Amino acid sequence: MTERVVLAYSGGLDTSVCIGWIAEETGAEVIAVAVDVGQGGEDLDVIRQRALDCGAVEAEVADARDEFADEYCLPALKANALYQGQYPLVSALSRPVIVKHLVAAAKKHGATTVAHGCTGKGNDQVRFEVGIQSLAPELKCIAPVRDYAMTRDKAIAFAEAKGLPIATTKKSPYSIDQNVFGRAVETGFLEDIWNAPIEDVYEYTQNPATPREADEVVITFEAGVPVAIDGRKVTVLQAIEELNKRAGGQGIGRLDMVEDRLVGIKSREIYEAPGAIALITAHQALENVTVERELARYKRQVEQRWAELVYDGLWFSPLKRALDGFVNEANQHVTGEIRMVLHGGRAVVNGRKSAQSLYDFNLATYDTGDTFDQSMSKGFIEIFGMSSKIAARRDLA
Amino acid sequence: MTERVVLAYSGGLDTSVCIGWIAEETGAEVIAVAVDVGQGGEDLDVIRQRALDCGAVEAEVADARDEFADEYCLPALKANALYQGQYPLVSALSRPVIVKHLVAAAKKHGATTVAHGCTGKGNDQVRFEVGIQSLAPELKCIAPVRDYAMTRDKAIAFAEAKGLPIATTKKSPYSIDQNVFGRAVETGFLEDIWNAPIEDVYEYTQNPATPREADEVVITFEAGVPVAIDGRKVTVLQAIEELNKRAGGQGIGRLDMVEDRLVGIKSREIYEAPGAIALITAHQALENVTVERELARYKRQVEQRWAELVYDGLWFSPLKRALDGFVNEANQHVTGEIRMVLHGGRAVVNGRKSAQSLYDFNLATYDTGDTFDQSMSKGFIEIFGMSSKIAARRDLA
Amino acid sequence: MTERVVLAYSGGLDTSVCIGWIAEETGAEVIAVAVDVGQGGEDLDVIRQRALDCGAVEAEVADARDEFADEYCLPALKANALYQGQYPLVSALSRPVIVKHLVAAAKKHGATTVAHGCTGKGNDQVRFEVGIQSLAPELKCIAPVRDYAMTRDKAIAFAEAKGLPIATTKKSPYSIDQNVFGRAVETGFLEDIWNAPIEDVYEYTQNPATPREADEVVITFEAGVPVAIDGRKVTVLQAIEELNKRAGGQGIGRLDMVEDRLVGIKSREIYEAPGAIALITAHQALENVTVERELARYKRQVEQRWAELVYDGLWFSPLKRALDGFVNEANQHVTGEIRMVLHGGRAVVNGRKSAQSLYDFNLATYDTGDTFDQSMSKGFIEIFGMSSKIAARRDLA
Amino acid sequence: MTERVVLAYSGGLDTSVCIGWIAEETGAEVIAVAVDVGQGGEDLDVIRQRALDCGAVEAEVADARDEFADEYCLPALKANALYQGQYPLVSALSRPVIVKHLVAAAKKHGATTVAHGCTGKGNDQVRFEVGIQSLAPELKCIAPVRDYAMTRDKAIAFAEAKGLPIATTKKSPYSIDQNVFGRAVETGFLEDIWNAPIEDVYEYTQNPATPREADEVVITFEAGVPVAIDGRKVTVLQAIEELNKRAGGQGIGRLDMVEDRLVGIKSREIYEAPGAIALITAHQALENVTVERELARYKRQVEQRWAELVYDGLWFSPLKRALDGFVNEANQHVTGEIRMVLHGGRAVVNGRKSAQSLYDFNLATYDTGDTFDQSMSKGFIEIFGMSSKIAARRDLA
Repeated sequence: MTERVVLAYSGGLDTSVCIGWIAEETGAEVIAVAVDVGQGGEDLDVIRQRALDCGAVEAEVADARDEFADEYCLPALKANALYQGQYPLVSALSRPVIVKHLVAAAKKHGATTVAHGCTGKGNDQVRFEVGIQSLAPELKCIAPVRDYAMTRDKAIAFAEAKGLPIATTKKSPYSIDQNVFGRAVETGFLEDIWNAPIEDVYEYTQNPATPREADEVVITFEAGVPVAIDGRKVTVLQAIEELNKRAGGQGIGRLDMVEDRLVGIKSREIYEAPGAIALITAHQALENVTVERELARYKRQVEQRWAELVYDGLWFSPLKRALDGFVNEANQHVTGEIRMVLHGGRAVVNGRKSAQSLYDFNLATYDTGDTFDQSMSKGFIEIFGMSSKIAARRDLA
Repeated sequence: MTERVVLAYSGGLDTSVCIGWIAEETGAEVIAVAVDVGQGGEDLDVIRQRALDCGAVEAEVADARDEFADEYCLPALKANALYQGQYPLVSALSRPVIVKHLVAAAKKHGATTVAHGCTGKGNDQVRFEVGIQSLAPELKCIAPVRDYAMTRDKAIAFAEAKGLPIATTKKSPYSIDQNVFGRAVETGFLEDIWNAPIEDVYEYTQNPATPREADEVVITFEAGVPVAIDGRKVTVLQAIEELNKRAGGQGIGRLDMVEDRLVGIKSREIYEAPGAIALITAHQALENVTVERELARYKRQVEQRWAELVYDGLWFSPLKRALDGFVNEANQHVTGEIRMVLHGGRAVVNGRKSAQSLYDFNLATYDTGDTFDQSMSKGFIEIFGMSSKIAARRDLA
Repeated sequence: MTERVVLAYSGGLDTSVCIGWIAEETGAEVIAVAVDVGQGGEDLDVIRQRALDCGAVEAEVADARDEFADEYCLPALKANALYQGQYPLVSALSRPVIVKHLVAAAKKHGATTVAHGCTGKGNDQVRFEVGIQSLAPELKCIAPVRDYAMTRDKAIAFAEAKGLPIATTKKSPYSIDQNVFGRAVETGFLEDIWNAPIEDVYEYTQNPATPREADEVVITFEAGVPVAIDGRKVTVLQAIEELNKRAGGQGIGRLDMVEDRLVGIKSREIYEAPGAIALITAHQALENVTVERELARYKRQVEQRWAELVYDGLWFSPLKRALDGFVNEANQHVTGEIRMVLHGGRAVVNGRKSAQSLYDFNLATYDTGDTFDQSMSKGFIEIFGMSSKIAARRDLA
Repeated sequence: MTERVVLAYSGGLDTSVCIGWIAEETGAEVIAVAVDVGQGGEDLDVIRQRALDCGAVEAEVADARDEFADEYCLPALKANALYQGQYPLVSALSRPVIVKHLVAAAKKHGATTVAHGCTGKGNDQVRFEVGIQSLAPELKCIAPVRDYAMTRDKAIAFAEAKGLPIATTKKSPYSIDQNVFGRAVETGFLEDIWNAPIEDVYEYTQNPATPREADEVVITFEAGVPVAIDGRKVTVLQAIEELNKRAGGQGIGRLDMVEDRLVGIKSREIYEAPGAIALITAHQALENVTVERELARYKRQVEQRWAELVYDGLWFSPLKRALDGFVNEANQHVTGEIRMVLHGGRAVVNGRKSAQSLYDFNLATYDTGDTFDQSMSKGFIEIFGMSSKIAARRDLA
């Protein structure tokens, strides 16, 4: 029987060419799989037909938007996951859900190999392949761009030679990956890290410097899950989409950073993630009210490791599962409302309300009603500082 | 010989009353010590005279602004110290430098006790007393507000009865602590955490929503130290002061948070720290370019512990010294220039330049000149993902 | 109605005197509660009667040995909990289970206060009181030794004056706390930390230097729980008890350490915990076979924090619950058999067997059957070392 | 000019064959470099001559024993470095010092490449190559066993065909690496992890079960450095050597573990490290007396990362340098004497003495002279437990 290869298919030039290229290199039949994670653009049926027209023996498309929001973006939100303290893992989150669909298709169609369109110097190749190894260790992985030297120029020549139904003329200067949780842009002139990005780079966000009215929003969380916006019930997907519009409309969520790739190099990245940044900001503010101090301090360290793991492509790893055990427990009481003002590129929390609040007005207030017993403090300070004091007596001697 | 008490003196009502109050409670002579950490306000000589007029047997004033910037704010900058990921430790940084001057005065004047004006439910009492215990374990500490029930009302009555040369009429609704690194505000109506702050609360920052021209600034660092702004050499103090003006003028550095105090309660705090936030933002961006990945990842965890320690009043502790050993080593190559735009409440880095850069254009570029050997990636991925893959084979079985 | 105080009652002199002492100090009725956590010694009914004879209005005794083993010792085993890398938290584990029974008794009998016999300079006062605050924040705590200056001499005088049915003559030189998980001893001559312990100090362990036959044992774990010894099914309690005998008979589990107390001082402690040490040693060895590397590395850090939290009396804290979420997930596959030799003070693992093993003979072997693809290593090394190499190029320049 | 390759030369069959093998594969001249790290065995001059006889164009030998002890073993001791809590990094420590000599030789002789005899599935290939990349990024690395398929059988055939002056008949069943800090053994029958090691495996240690007299030793440290044994001044090398004899003679330092390799697999390893284990045990005990609690707690986490980094071959990495900054600061006061009994496989500390001690008899004692103010504890407990208590009030509601 002819070998079968499942290809992660986007509908664009590169992966359209991959269909025939893989067939020629390996003699295998190619099954194209396109997964909608909210990247927008063409209709899934159009994409499906194009795959078939380009020579795929089968083509599958899946609307994974809710799955992506509920099972991938939401855990990231609960973990306030920001790689290097900034990047909300946009692409890193979408790879595992795509992998899941690729592996399912491989099993369904009896494929032995999964192919993807990544280069050999980025993070996504690792995320795809380690993900696939972890869900189906028996599958092989190939990446035509990396393994068969399928450069852009060769891809265009191939498409034209074969008459593939895909445009080859327009070459965008931008290399883009986007989904409902955000958008990543790389481009030649930004590889000089002294150059500033230009407005043209952005699509999910308006210019924050443009004068406009502020937008006030109230987000309701239940156990860490955003469940309502301004009192209207929402799914996680809807929450992200609405905040993409509203926070994006205020220029919120633009990032310009030099980032440490898993493959050991530093790269310049521009991101837009208005919904993600707004939600994480609100979630953190609610945690400040509802999570006990020592748990909060430890969770910050867990969050960092969580973000690194997922960035590094280890979504399906045992450590990820165990950290989720911690993170879910820590979100149990993160219930309440956060009011924030979206304006001029800033998402600013200015009100919190929670039946699960640990903020105790009577302990905190300096006015009438103060219940804090200040006489306890002297003993606390004496013993809290004891080990430092004993060390000081020695060190000063 | 009469016992002597050194009092941390601000020149305000509370500590002016403390002079006589302590004398009455303890029979001791009171020596007032005022330390200028950039809090602004009255002239030091005026403050000194007032202390004497209020009954102090001696009064000392010290301009510790450069010392504060160089030895307290700078280590915080090198550690990107943000408590709970937000608060740049404004008051927490000033306490140890004040403590140092109090202890020096106590030794000079043969005092056995140090007094401060803090209440018994805040962090500052701990920072003062643990600091004093650590520099001079033989000194005792007293806090009249906490230990002798010196309430505001009683203080006013005392001042009026004794005819102290200090205004008692105007009662500001705000409880404020400020220094060159920032400003902290607490006030009654914000103790309801659903209430938003009003513009009246702020002093170091303009309203970010006011339309104005953007301000572009280039900050030069050497080994983590800000040494020039827009090409002009600056001291650390000057860097903070200039950025307080310029970033503050753009509404940068406002914080509104519910924070975990060391004494176990949550409190609502408003901070303004335009210079601190601008400098930390720039410093982090330069680290992203000049610090190796594994060092950067570990440093993030060290930074958190550093900030917690200093927040908790353990500036003079053995762990703080050892963490500084790490942080200084990590800053050795943080040399270069950061260009950032200050505008509308945002400090946005958009350019980096460094002779110590680890960003390698030829490894990063997708264009001509690419030197990254993509053929290495397959082996990397296989072995990097090996332990996850082996675990997956078991877990899926 | 007369106030009621629940007293943690041991049956010994101190807590027997406490019954009357508390009554005199507070006018309250005292309810004695004794909890059997495997400390051995007198029959519970005898203890119960003594409490009544000493003036308690009610006396309750509870056999909490299985509860203690299953709900307190077992989580510690899953976390390989060793404070300062050595001490298996013997007393620290028993306090929360005792607290649970005290609180239940307080609710049942309408008491407003809980009393315990601890001094004011140890850890146990914190464990009792923070535990009680966490299970019943409305209850007050008192400690007659600390709060009412009930010294040993005064207690003896009180007992003799009142004719309490308790021996006052024999004064053991040792201060001892013991339960099924181990035994702690403090004594005057060991407060000189240069002095060596003498054989007389030990009770759970034989002299390891005595010649005897080695004892080989096979312990079976399921998901981290010891379920069989030498093929015989056991409860957790039985596992600890049997290994106390067998490992204790070989002189295993003696500890002599200077330890950091929560109250800020260092103290010299002698512990014996033969069963605990044998079980933790076996559990760790099985984890080495069944837990994936990154999870194992992270778990080591979680284990340390877990042990510190529990040592510090924060058993009922939110962070403890969240860490347990992690630890339980990490133990899911810790299933299999460990063979160890108990001999001469050493518990040495020399065989492991597991259906959940991640040890892959074919990947590990250097002999026939090797399936490890060594050609992958070159790429791995190149990229794994990339960020160090790039940093080196700069640092050497 | 002919290319030159520097070869890490041991004098054994494999690396002797490598000389000619590399010459044939690459056409390069081979320079053999042997480094004495205390592995014992043949005289360095004999080894040097053999390299020349086997075809090396140059051969260098270096006695690096003191350098190894002072600059590699000592930092490990200061960090109490035990990978997976057990393995004192024996081989992992020797690789960087060997690398340093290889790189120096490459520079001296104008070589472009460094070769080593490691396989492609172990840790040492990574340690050699990442080390070389970090000291001399311009050098290439080759490993004939891995890269040119130089199996043992082929090596024997090559040696016999070329008449190399090296024995090919005796095939030890053991694969061994040893140096002054310890000895590692792998062997076929132990690849079945249920099999116990046999006495034949060990060389640095006597059978711990053999009856013999105990040996008491006093080790003196200054700032973490062992400087005297039983009052006699020693170098670090002498300290390790003497304790190898004395602790080894008591059967101390045997390890049998399943370990997580950097290349993602688990392997069974037998180690002997009597001197290392005795020194680390003593060093830890002295830290318990001289290091402040919070520093000690944090240092445990730093130690783990230090050990992982060095195990993973990142000795020359920026993070390693920064962690050393922390570790050295933390060792500043680790000065004093530790008395320990070496007997029956156990190294048991039973006395500590230090002018830098933080153990305060008067604070610790329960006898006359107690200076601990127990009245402080109530306030401490109240505030220390506050955040847990507030959380409990909510969670119980």
